[in-house]
Amino acid sequence: MKVAIIMGSKSDYPVLEKTEKVLADFGVEFETRIMSAHRTPAAAHEFAEKAEENGFEVIIAAAGKAAHLAGVLASKTPLPIIGIPVKSSTLDGLDSLLSTVQMPKGVPVATVAIDGAENAALLAIQMMSLKYPELREKMKAYKVKMEEEIMAIDAEFQNR
Amino acid sequence: MKVAIIMGSKSDYPVLEKTEKVLADFGVEFETRIMSAHRTPAAAHEFAEKAEENGFEVIIAAAGKAAHLAGVLASKTPLPIIGIPVKSSTLDGLDSLLSTVQMPKGVPVATVAIDGAENAALLAIQMMSLKYPELREKMKAYKVKMEEEIMAIDAEFQNR
Amino acid sequence: MKVAIIMGSKSDYPVLEKTEKVLADFGVEFETRIMSAHRTPAAAHEFAEKAEENGFEVIIAAAGKAAHLAGVLASKTPLPIIGIPVKSSTLDGLDSLLSTVQMPKGVPVATVAIDGAENAALLAIQMMSLKYPELREKMKAYKVKMEEEIMAIDAEFQNR
Amino acid sequence: MKVAIIMGSKSDYPVLEKTEKVLADFGVEFETRIMSAHRTPAAAHEFAEKAEENGFEVIIAAAGKAAHLAGVLASKTPLPIIGIPVKSSTLDGLDSLLSTVQMPKGVPVATVAIDGAENAALLAIQMMSLKYPELREKMKAYKVKMEEEIMAIDAEFQNR
Amino acid sequence: MKVAIIMGSKSDYPVLEKTEKVLADFGVEFETRIMSAHRTPAAAHEFAEKAEENGFEVIIAAAGKAAHLAGVLASKTPLPIIGIPVKSSTLDGLDSLLSTVQMPKGVPVATVAIDGAENAALLAIQMMSLKYPELREKMKAYKVKMEEEIMAIDAEFQNR
Amino acid sequence: MKVAIIMGSKSDYPVLEKTEKVLADFGVEFETRIMSAHRTPAAAHEFAEKAEENGFEVIIAAAGKAAHLAGVLASKTPLPIIGIPVKSSTLDGLDSLLSTVQMPKGVPVATVAIDGAENAALLAIQMMSLKYPELREKMKAYKVKMEEEIMAIDAEFQNR
Amino acid sequence: MKVAIIMGSKSDYPVLEKTEKVLADFGVEFETRIMSAHRTPAAAHEFAEKAEENGFEVIIAAAGKAAHLAGVLASKTPLPIIGIPVKSSTLDGLDSLLSTVQMPKGVPVATVAIDGAENAALLAIQMMSLKYPELREKMKAYKVKMEEEIMAIDAEFQNR
Amino acid sequence: MKVAIIMGSKSDYPVLEKTEKVLADFGVEFETRIMSAHRTPAAAHEFAEKAEENGFEVIIAAAGKAAHLAGVLASKTPLPIIGIPVKSSTLDGLDSLLSTVQMPKGVPVATVAIDGAENAALLAIQMMSLKYPELREKMKAYKVKMEEEIMAIDAEFQNR
Repeated sequence: MKVAIIMGSKSDYPVLEKTEKVLADFGVEFETRIMSAHRTPAAAHEFAEKAEENGFEVIIAAAGKAAHLAGVLASKTPLPIIGIPVKSSTLDGLDSLLSTVQMPKGVPVATVAIDGAENAALLAIQMMSLKYPELREKMKAYKVKMEEEIMAIDAEFQNR
Repeated sequence: MKVAIIMGSKSDYPVLEKTEKVLADFGVEFETRIMSAHRTPAAAHEFAEKAEENGFEVIIAAAGKAAHLAGVLASKTPLPIIGIPVKSSTLDGLDSLLSTVQMPKGVPVATVAIDGAENAALLAIQMMSLKYPELREKMKAYKVKMEEEIMAIDAEFQNR
Repeated sequence: MKVAIIMGSKSDYPVLEKTEKVLADFGVEFETRIMSAHRTPAAAHEFAEKAEENGFEVIIAAAGKAAHLAGVLASKTPLPIIGIPVKSSTLDGLDSLLSTVQMPKGVPVATVAIDGAENAALLAIQMMSLKYPELREKMKAYKVKMEEEIMAIDAEFQNR
Repeated sequence: MKVAIIMGSKSDYPVLEKTEKVLADFGVEFETRIMSAHRTPAAAHEFAEKAEENGFEVIIAAAGKAAHLAGVLASKTPLPIIGIPVKSSTLDGLDSLLSTVQMPKGVPVATVAIDGAENAALLAIQMMSLKYPELREKMKAYKVKMEEEIMAIDAEFQNR
Repeated sequence: MKVAIIMGSKSDYPVLEKTEKVLADFGVEFETRIMSAHRTPAAAHEFAEKAEENGFEVIIAAAGKAAHLAGVLASKTPLPIIGIPVKSSTLDGLDSLLSTVQMPKGVPVATVAIDGAENAALLAIQMMSLKYPELREKMKAYKVKMEEEIMAIDAEFQNR
Repeated sequence: MKVAIIMGSKSDYPVLEKTEKVLADFGVEFETRIMSAHRTPAAAHEFAEKAEENGFEVIIAAAGKAAHLAGVLASKTPLPIIGIPVKSSTLDGLDSLLSTVQMPKGVPVATVAIDGAENAALLAIQMMSLKYPELREKMKAYKVKMEEEIMAIDAEFQNR
Repeated sequence: MKVAIIMGSKSDYPVLEKTEKVLADFGVEFETRIMSAHRTPAAAHEFAEKAEENGFEVIIAAAGKAAHLAGVLASKTPLPIIGIPVKSSTLDGLDSLLSTVQMPKGVPVATVAIDGAENAALLAIQMMSLKYPELREKMKAYKVKMEEEIMAIDAEFQNR
Repeated sequence: MKVAIIMGSKSDYPVLEKTEKVLADFGVEFETRIMSAHRTPAAAHEFAEKAEENGFEVIIAAAGKAAHLAGVLASKTPLPIIGIPVKSSTLDGLDSLLSTVQMPKGVPVATVAIDGAENAALLAIQMMSLKYPELREKMKAYKVKMEEEIMAIDAEFQNR
């Protein structure tokens, strides 16, 4: 039960820290790496090629601008890839989103919202819960807790 | 090994037919339903609530315009949800894409490209291959075949 | 003469506070709730289903990103629904706007501008003034006052 | 129980014909007029000013491009105004949508989807149903029928 | 030789102050007014109707969001209207731009860049210079001076 | 009383033919030329430089894609320049619009709607009517006629 | 003097045929290949890695949607890469453009217009003309001829 | 081995300083000038016309808004032109990008990312490395160093 988190640049870490946090909360092992589709292509290719035999079950990739990272990893592994488009200094995340989600036929990337760090982790957990019933149970509990928290906030708000 | 395919309107079927075809090619059982987040909300909610116990492992949801279907299903099930934004008559698919992918924290939708019907199926297969090794092997074979086909097209093109 | 104000997250309250203020100024009773289409779907569905019998006449719903809240409420009630797209940290409100306004045939959402909190209240009042003549009169007075205020600002500006 | 339908150009009629059809189905009287915020401003202003005393309860306005019609009518009447952004030959309806929905504080326009002709009628009916209980009942029946129709399509689809 | 500057809200004045400055530098008389297409429609209509007989030769109108002001003024006067789309808190000025420039056939608005305050003044001067040769000469001198200034900045920059 | 119409490519002529028609209807002399900011820069520069002494009073420039033509002409003449953004095969006219309207401080282009051929002519006439009272009168008559025509269409529509 | 033309899919060939034509007209040798960043990543990587030693001097890459091809090739070669964003069935080329041009620091792609097939060839020729004076001369002649052709079209148009 | 860097306004220098730095690091001579397509058109035209005989081999042009500078320079020289779209105060760089990249057939601009200052320098170096083998070697070393640096950051990150 191990997830790889790959970021295109260390500057993306403030976003991915939240991904790590959710995975840790669910008791999922993860390894976070800095690799770039464009600047360390060999490392990225090699990582993707060996990800399955190295025991990874899902890969989460985060990148900004012309965000090719998730797609490049997806080209070299049969594992499911989750892409997080990261908002950068121009275009408000639209470039990252389109570069991540608009993948051609044959090589999907499971894309979450721009800067959707927590959701990438939750999606990885949902995928792994196909195999690990304990994750399914934790996911159900998470949803119940989320629901209760918001209902509590609402109740408290009614009493303001 | 069963996938649910939900479309918001029967007019989306020409897109989803390609999803069915890929699943069938991989030997994955599927059930295709017409349900709308807005027009049959009770049916959609009920379907999502019972999807797990009814043996579904992944849900693929396709909708256009203010495409809420994937998100609404995601709210009621711990299963992974794949969203296909469907291009409709205005805005060239941008509305469907943003409505599907920009999910708030806590409830992810694994979004594929606009009209990305085949990729939704492939992504579902990648998810299920965490549990079913035979799907993993088929996925690897699919990638090899795709690679070979394109290389064959290239080779033929060189001889034009 | 009672309006429901529903927000997808408590963080939307700074926007909705202005909605409350306008309703209060017109002497309209309101109840503000925190409910999420995705995180508390049962509560949202139930609220919408019982809104009419609970005496609400209009529902105002505010949400950001893939803003499904207004649409989800609209699916479960015959009451008119007003949607406020809330600007969030990426895409400058475009995702919220398209997710709110581009509703499919059969289930309208009366959409106001991004972060258009006051206008949501005014629109609710205009709707209710079909039934309550006193609101119609107040609305007319509001328009006259608004006109006079701007003309006064203009007059003062001429004398700068 | 009378609705005004105003279109900025006769070329918008193919869209508005669907609005008329829905209103007729609900037994709502309507009057359809061609008026332009820019080409017949006096007529538009005068119509809006007298709309209330002429017995109209809701105004539906449809226009394309820099779609000012709904806003201009809204400036001269306390009645609720529903705006239909009409897609024209460039920009895929985005200009019409933004020009209709992004109204400044004080003068709301209840905006429906681009070319959302039927929904404009349904929204008008929802507004009027605050006053006319028979419309509320028809609206409920409409929702039930819509739900049943889609469920029937789904059932039929299961038997293909 | 008199120009009217109309702003939809006093909050637009920081933009229009630059328009005033350019006009003053060219010795063009101007009158700056606060009028709103939506909040003071009668004043706006009346102003536009009488603008010609009141001696105005060009009208500059600045507004944000669903910026109808320039178009509404243009509907009531044969004078040329210059529109300045003002950037507001959402959508980065795109809504203002499209609402100003995409005017239907028959009623043009001469649109300048978003927040293009100085250019609105220069365009008004170019228009008036058809009639007033002294403005043509000043315009030529302005262009020469602008050219020289930039060349001086360039020269200075070469010596850094 | 002479207007220059410049198009970046002969393929823009179907748009500009409508500009010619309006100018001819108003009795305004015009000369239509094919010149490109990028392909015949010398001719474009020379034309702009001599436009004033050659008796032109307004220049209308139409171009698509990265539409630099209007801006390039504006850089070399004190005459007012009207820009028509022409829709081309991609991006639905947005590139042409932004390239035409977003001019930097100092060099305005009076931009009309995408493919706004008639309005470019009308705007040129409004500009020239500062100097030629007969054009002002024709413009007023044009507005009256336009108003009457639409009212006649409306009247006829009432009797359908 | 050899250029590689790489297309992500054979369906892009109608665009790239124009690139070939321009290169052929300039007497530049080229080789056109079908390779995909996502479907034949090994072939693409290998091609890029060996492009220099195989005598290529410039690589032109064309792809649509999440167009990663140019960037992926650029990651593996010091040669200049020219990217042609290809318009596909949704989003009008915007996704292809942003995915091609918004490359991160360190790995540029020289991007031309959406479907800018001829310009990709011309840009390759301009690059190679740094080394091959005969290409520089041909480029100058091309520009002169282009200018003359447009001036001839203009002259002919004057005599219509 | 000399590059011209042209900026449309001195305010673009903070972006271009990074271009200078990269060129200096590679030992490439450069000259940075302030010239505007619109404000100093004669200087820009003359510079472009003489750039080749003055020993420049590549021109880098940076401009914002309706960014015509690169295109205008490209119209007057056979040298390759690199365009940097500069983000300005509205529209988040989209206007600059489209105005730079969407060049018509015949006159390419090699466009890099919005504010892509370093990449413009690297692209110029890649172009010049066709002629200067030492630059090719430096480029290879640059890529290796970039790769090593990121791998070092990754390694360090693993040990956090």
